[in-house]
Amino acid sequence: MEEQKPEGQLRPGEKAIDLRTSADAELQFIGSIRTPWKNRADCPRQGSFDGPLCSIEVDETWQPALAGLEAEASLDVLYWLHQATRNLVLQMPRGRSEPAGTFSIRSPNRPNPIGVSTVRLERIIGNRLEVRGLDCLDGTPLIDIKPHRRPRFDDSR
Amino acid sequence: MEEQKPEGQLRPGEKAIDLRTSADAELQFIGSIRTPWKNRADCPRQGSFDGPLCSIEVDETWQPALAGLEAEASLDVLYWLHQATRNLVLQMPRGRSEPAGTFSIRSPNRPNPIGVSTVRLERIIGNRLEVRGLDCLDGTPLIDIKPHRRPRFDDSR
Repeated sequence: MEEQKPEGQLRPGEKAIDLRTSADAELQFIGSIRTPWKNRADCPRQGSFDGPLCSIEVDETWQPALAGLEAEASLDVLYWLHQATRNLVLQMPRGRSEPAGTFSIRSPNRPNPIGVSTVRLERIIGNRLEVRGLDCLDGTPLIDIKPHRRPRFDDSR
Repeated sequence: MEEQKPEGQLRPGEKAIDLRTSADAELQFIGSIRTPWKNRADCPRQGSFDGPLCSIEVDETWQPALAGLEAEASLDVLYWLHQATRNLVLQMPRGRSEPAGTFSIRSPNRPNPIGVSTVRLERIIGNRLEVRGLDCLDGTPLIDIKPHRRPRFDDSR
């Protein structure tokens, strides 16, 4: 396991742990994501359905697995946050005065740095999906695509 | 990479590929999930906020990362679908007459078998979260927990 933040680079209030060296499961990337954002500071805090058009390029091996996807209006996209730090339990996001537990925020820095965005599907051209709603870096590795389903009986709105 | 469905076990209309043997990223499980469902046939098709109470047990190493989570009404939970088949591009879910592209359905059988559920948080007791809305097997390995944020400008409802 890589991507550990060394003790000396912690901000005040942050806390890191020693990660295990063993892995429990393995991922294979299935494509990559093209967005307008070239570094983390440029990325929006959260994607928006009226944000810029982004592309999801699916490896040709997996292109047949897109069959039927064109019928869906919104998708859940999973991707690997390849610039993340993985060993923080408490972290201090910019603009906050108190450290936050890693699971209480949507920071990319987490033990398994997987991003999940719900996007609006505009069109599919061959192995390329054009979507709106992403907020990740250009070149982000793709993990999965599935139809979005809203939680049932969502009384939290 | 394991969990390949051999040619001879494919249903009519299903299509499998040969997975690469190399991994692009590694996961470390951070806990496990307790639900009432002991085998795949018992699991509901989709979780519900008025479904049964389930528990998410976070490894003690990661317990400090729960700080602040109690303020959230709904969470996104990511978990590893440990009984999934990973090499199907077309698959035939029970009850369908035509094969479906893997990315066009929410089947657990997918190249990177990660489940995402939005759950309602009832309470946190130490390293255990009590939630409603899961639909996964008892003993499912936990990958991540984060606050749920609805997509912005969701005009798909």
